[in-house]
Formats: sequence, C-alpha cells, structure tokens
Amino acid sequence: MSNTSTPKGTRDFGAIEMLRRNYIFDTIKEVFRKYGYLQIETPAQELLSTLLGKYGDEGDRLLFRILNSGDFLSKVEDEELEKRDLANITKKIAEKGLRYDLTVPFARYVVQHRNEIQLPFKRFQIQPVWRADRPQKGRYREFVQCDADAVGTDSLLLEMELVEMSEEVFRKLGIRVAFLVNNRKILAGIAEVIGTPERLTELTVAMDKLDKIGEKGVKDELSSRGFSESEIVLFEPFLRMESQNNETILATLSQLLSSSAVGMEGVEELRTILALLPPDNEEMKVIVSPSLARGLSYYTGTIMEIKALDATIGSISGGGRYDNLTGIFGVKGLSGVGISYGADRIYDVMEQLNLFPPALNSTAEILVVNFGMEEIKALLPLVRSLRKNGRKVIVYPDAAKMKKQLSYADALRIPYVIMAGTEELKMGSVTLKDMNTGDQDEVPQERLLELFPSKER
Amino acid sequence: MSNTSTPKGTRDFGAIEMLRRNYIFDTIKEVFRKYGYLQIETPAQELLSTLLGKYGDEGDRLLFRILNSGDFLSKVEDEELEKRDLANITKKIAEKGLRYDLTVPFARYVVQHRNEIQLPFKRFQIQPVWRADRPQKGRYREFVQCDADAVGTDSLLLEMELVEMSEEVFRKLGIRVAFLVNNRKILAGIAEVIGTPERLTELTVAMDKLDKIGEKGVKDELSSRGFSESEIVLFEPFLRMESQNNETILATLSQLLSSSAVGMEGVEELRTILALLPPDNEEMKVIVSPSLARGLSYYTGTIMEIKALDATIGSISGGGRYDNLTGIFGVKGLSGVGISYGADRIYDVMEQLNLFPPALNSTAEILVVNFGMEEIKALLPLVRSLRKNGRKVIVYPDAAKMKKQLSYADALRIPYVIMAGTEELKMGSVTLKDMNTGDQDEVPQERLLELFPSKER
Repeated sequence: MSNTSTPKGTRDFGAIEMLRRNYIFDTIKEVFRKYGYLQIETPAQELLSTLLGKYGDEGDRLLFRILNSGDFLSKVEDEELEKRDLANITKKIAEKGLRYDLTVPFARYVVQHRNEIQLPFKRFQIQPVWRADRPQKGRYREFVQCDADAVGTDSLLLEMELVEMSEEVFRKLGIRVAFLVNNRKILAGIAEVIGTPERLTELTVAMDKLDKIGEKGVKDELSSRGFSESEIVLFEPFLRMESQNNETILATLSQLLSSSAVGMEGVEELRTILALLPPDNEEMKVIVSPSLARGLSYYTGTIMEIKALDATIGSISGGGRYDNLTGIFGVKGLSGVGISYGADRIYDVMEQLNLFPPALNSTAEILVVNFGMEEIKALLPLVRSLRKNGRKVIVYPDAAKMKKQLSYADALRIPYVIMAGTEELKMGSVTLKDMNTGDQDEVPQERLLELFPSKER
Repeated sequence: MSNTSTPKGTRDFGAIEMLRRNYIFDTIKEVFRKYGYLQIETPAQELLSTLLGKYGDEGDRLLFRILNSGDFLSKVEDEELEKRDLANITKKIAEKGLRYDLTVPFARYVVQHRNEIQLPFKRFQIQPVWRADRPQKGRYREFVQCDADAVGTDSLLLEMELVEMSEEVFRKLGIRVAFLVNNRKILAGIAEVIGTPERLTELTVAMDKLDKIGEKGVKDELSSRGFSESEIVLFEPFLRMESQNNETILATLSQLLSSSAVGMEGVEELRTILALLPPDNEEMKVIVSPSLARGLSYYTGTIMEIKALDATIGSISGGGRYDNLTGIFGVKGLSGVGISYGADRIYDVMEQLNLFPPALNSTAEILVVNFGMEEIKALLPLVRSLRKNGRKVIVYPDAAKMKKQLSYADALRIPYVIMAGTEELKMGSVTLKDMNTGDQDEVPQERLLELFPSKER
C-alpha cells in the first residue's frame, strides 16, 4: 500500500472534530457579525512581494513558497546554478507564497480595494494560514486564525468593543477568561522616564518576562544588557505594580509618568476604555498589566491578551492598536485595531475542560434499518417527511445483518433507530429504538413525525 | 505604492460576496447533513506522491508545487543543474503540492483512516482546490468544490439519494435544473453490441459530442477514426433516442442491448433508480441520456450531470459511481458514488438569474449615529440590549458629520439608523430612521427593543 499520510505538521479533521470546530467558528462568526464586523476572504496564495519582509527574517524563512509553473529555471543564470546561489535562485523560481497570517493580506486588501470599501472598515476573516515551522504538539504547519480588525478610526470605542466582543465569544463557548491590557505609550513613557527612550524595545522585552523570571530576573537581564544601576532603580517601581487593582495601578502610573506626555496619554486611553466597558459585569475580568508587551512591533497603542483561567495553555488570543497598518504598502495614516483568536488553542482548551455540548458527538439523529429494497421503498415517504422536518436521517443502504446495522448506529452515536418489517409496514407503524436507553416502541408513522417535529428555518 | 494585486487567477471576496457565498454553502451543507453526509476536511497540502499520476499528464502539469524549505538544492546533483534537468530537479526540490480536487484527498483519507471510519461512509467536503490553469473569465486558479461521496456500498439507494438531495439543494437555491443520467455499463453494452468492446472510450468520446455536433457529426468522427460502415450502422439507433421519454428510451435500450449482459445491467440499474425516486415530483426533471459520457475514466456505473435550465452556463454539477476509488492507494474493492458542485458556477447562475435573497445585500441591521463620546456612552446599554437580541449593530466610532455617518449607512445598505442627542437621551428615547423610506420617528428605548425583538438561538 502506498504512503497515505498527510505532509508533516498537517492533519485531517474527521466528522466529530468538524462538528466541534464549526461550533467554535459559528459562535465566533455570530458574535463578530453582531458587532458589525463583515466577513471577507483572501486567496491562499499571495505574491511573495506582498509577504516578504513583513514578518522579519524568521518569518521570511518560514514562508511556504510555490514553485513557478512551466520552465521554472528559465530566468536563472548558469552561474547562479553553478554556485547554488539559493537566495537568487529562490527569487527567480518562486513568485508566490502561502498566506502566513491574516494581517498582511488584510492590509493588502484595504489598499487594493480602497476605492470600494467604506472607512471605518470593520472586517473579520477566518481562514487557514501556513508556516513551515518545526511541528510540535499543538503547533501545526496549517492552522486557522480568526481575526477581527477595524481600520480608519482611532476611536477607543473599538478597543472597548474588542474586549466586550471577546468576552461574549468566550462566555458563549464556556471558557472563563481574563483580559490583560496595557498600552505601548505607557511602555514608551517608562523608557522616557528612566532616560532611555531609544532602548524601548530592550526594556519591553525584559519587562514582558516578569511573570516568568520575576523582578530579580528582569533586573539581572537589564543589567547584563548594560542598563546602569540608576536606570534600574528608576525602573523598579514599574515592576511592582502587578496584582494591584486597576485604579491603583493607573493612579501609580499617572504619578510615575507625570513627566512623560506620551506615557500620560497611554494611561488616559486605558482609563477611557475601562470607563466604557459595561459597569456591572463582574465576569469581565480586565486586568491592567504594565509589563504586557506583546511581540509584534507594529502595535502603537492599546495591547491586549486573553488568557483562559482554567487551562494551563495560557494566552488564547491577542491584539491591539496599530497606527500604520497599510504603510507597508505605501498608504499612510490608517489607524486600526484588531484581535486574533487561535482556533486550535481554543479547541484544546474546550477539550481539556470538557466544554463541547454533548449534541456535538452525534453525526445524525436517526438511522433507518434496511430489511430489503421493498421495505425501504415503503419507508421512503416517511424518510422524506422526516428530512422535510429538518432531521438528519441515514438510511442504511444495504440489507445487512441487524447486528451490523445497529452497531453502525452505535459507532456513529446516532441516538434513534427506526425499524420496520412487513408487519409494521402493513400497520403503518415503525419500531423506534432509543439507542441510549435501549427502549423500543412500536409507533404509528404520523406519531413519529410528531416525535420529530419540524425544525426547518 | 507597491503592487497590491492578488496572484493571477485568484481573487478577494468582499462582504456582500461572502454573504452570498455563505448562503450557497450553508444551503448545501444543511441538505448534505439531512442525508447523513458528514463533513470532513483535509489539509491544503498533500504529498506529491499522493497527487501525481492521478489526474493524467495534464493534471500533473497543473499541480501547484511547494518548494522544500531550507537548502532545497541539497539533494540535486551538479549534473542535473548543469543539464537543467527539470523533471528530476522538480522531484527533488518540491515534495508537496496543493490539493487539485477533493476526490483524491478523500480516497487518501479513507485509506489512512480505514480503522476509524465506519463503512458505508458518507462524507462531504467543501474546500478550495488549486490548479495552475490558464485563467479565463469564470475560471480561477483557486476555487471551491462541494463534494458528497458515499463509499463502501453498491446500493442504488445512494444514486437515488444524490439526485433527490441535489434536487433539494437547487430547489432551495431557486435554480431550476434537469438531471441527465446514464450508466457506463450501457455505454459498454453499446460497444459490445456493435462489436468493438475494446474501443469503448473512442465511442463514448464521440457520442458525448452528440448535442454539439449532431448525429452526422458523430458518425463522421467515428468514420474518420476508422470505424467501419457496418459498425456505424449498428450504432445509429443509439444516436436517435434523445428527447424520447425515459420509458421509451429504456425499452429501446433493452431491445438493442438484449445480447449484452453488461448493457442490460446498466438499463436495470437506471430503472431501479428511477423507480426509487419520489413518484409525484414533477419538478424533478430526470432525463435518461444514453449519449452522456462524462470525462473521468474512473466512473463504472451510473453517471449524472445537472444542468441549470434557465442559464446558458450549462452543467453545474456532475457525479457518478466508481468501483475502485481507493485502488490507487492499494486498497481494492471499495465501491462508491459521489457528486460535485462548483460553487463559482452556482454563484454565477444565481447572479445571472437574480436569485439571491435581498437580505443578503445588507451587512448590518442598525447603525448608531455618534454625536460624541458622552451620548454614545449613554446609548451603550441600548446597543448591548439590541445585540443581546441577536441584532447586528454598528456604532459609528467617531463624532463625524451627520451627513457622513448617514452616507456610511447608505453605502453599507444598513436599513435602520438610530440617532439620539441630549434631548432624546433625557427622554429615554431615540430617533429611528428607516433608510429605505426616509421616515423617522422618535421612539422610547423600550419600544425599540420590541421593534427589534430577540432572534437569538
């Protein structure tokens, strides 16, 4: 037999997994739509000129490249081949790559369709992305991202909405979450106040490790990076704010950052967002976290991260405000804010915490046992009526042994089985078997249609 | 500004297109599920060893290949580079390709998961496929296929179900269709009867052109291919059956094929399928068409094609029975039957015939006009209640000019606008504007929630 596995780091999804994945996607879509986000889709392939240089060297390396069609070597020089000049050969033999994330395609979309779309533009996108990363447990080379972004406005209402919307998504999915929020301007303010505005990145990278390596660890790292003792002393108070309540943190930040205009702006933005959130919602756990930095360098304002409270997996979502999404394509000044959920992580959390509704274990509602073509033919009108009622019905296609047919229903976790031989058919009835309890009853066919009434739209 | 177009033959889908595409997909999915078909998904990339040789030379040429990561030239010999030995270099620098259709991945899935799945296995799959074909109007390099297949049984109930299921899909979409059905065994019988069983393919290729080139054209083609005068005379009656009614055609075929066991089997299969179909359904136009051949050589029994009656686009779907789907992967004897719909063609037909429901033109239901942060803050509880009712609400994020906000609602075809300044808010009311009629009324906020009652699940 030939090798029938999928490429490394990719996988198939079976029927139950698909039911569960769709449950996650449908929940997310429904909520996104209620907040006015509109779905778009972009192609799997993008020109490499669109993708390259947008994700750093690491990202460029992890792009899947598509080999040009036809004589792909035609533009390659003999000398390049002889020298095995990978960089130049690659450029000439592959002009397209697979989507690496949904943000760059979205930026490309906004620029390309700028005359059709209305600003402010709220869009969501749920599509797979591909990365030639080393596969690991829970990390795949093809995975689905769910992104919502709004561009063309700097209104803080949108940050508030992202939190509120995410709270609704995770509440509906049954996942208890906490929102960590911070603002890049606060981080800039901190760098300014300790006198090293040009070393903002180093500072935030170190600070971001606070919950992993502790206050001493962060200070050691800064010291090894050449920050002076006095700079580190100025930095200390910012490391000691975590796990205070939000008001205290913001008040402290106001004091510490009073000399930094940009820092104060960040504090004010956070204050505004918190004040816009529903006041009486105790479930919405929003935590101001001055050490939160988030990796991507394009964030310029609010940054947020969502953590599942009852799972060890940590962050299941992140986002923030960026002031120059489309600048990479030459269109400046479009401010936006966005959030991204990882479907696989959400799936894992839900599985770990047993949060999928039991109904998602069942692939069909009713199996009709096959006693022979004549019997089935007589049952087809009933089958048609049940399907007309929106019910999922499988007619077993062959007159196999009863045991085989019942174990088929069992394996597919079909909760009800209909059986009708000549006798029952003569009476206009069927035997209905409840596969969970094992009970079975003879019921008239009309009664059956009442037991499975219409749920069609 | 940089080039921001998508690769040749690919495209973006905007909000309205997505609403319409989802309407098509959701309709298809809902019907597929009622017939017990279970959704699966396979990865976009497959090993080239899975894909190559399954679609003929043409198909191999049209596969998108993924360049290996890292030093992709490492296994290529100097001599191969020097000679620009494309065939061998390709093999060594690209081990994966993009999915070309859904059938081969499905066959691969069945073999790989044969110990987990239950036979008979009814699966559906709605995913994009990629072909490096010359782009044309209506032909893309990335397009979505919707396939339903059932394997592990040769019951003719499944053929009947495919027709019935497709009838329901297209009835729900509002597309009037005709089903052309034939059987490969009938074609084999015809070849047998005229004494050229070994030339079945040539015969069916010529016959398939009947509706394009007419009886004389088909006979000329056969003649030029070296069929003898007497063979062509024997063939003639088979060319004169179209546009008779089904019973007459089947009776004639029975007579003409009486000496061919395989031919008679094909006739009997068609008879059985027609007898299983709902008797009183005049809308289901099923036409026995002995000249229907369908391209793919793997069909062995029933073949079918679905045509839109009111559009010039012709076939929008095709399928049939194959007796050896998984044989290509070394697992023999699994009979199956399947059907495939092309989403783009269905979309084009629906657009051409204006069949999309008007509701699909609207991206959100309500726009809340922004008079300023204080006013919006006061309106947020109402906005939250409307969204709790399942309503799609966009709060305009900035206090822009009224005209700008209203034209935004207009451009997005949002049917209702809510406006509330200080006066209205003091009264606990809002102004509700109907964007279609232009009418506007001041209504109390509680009344508004009655006008937009809950439609949450």
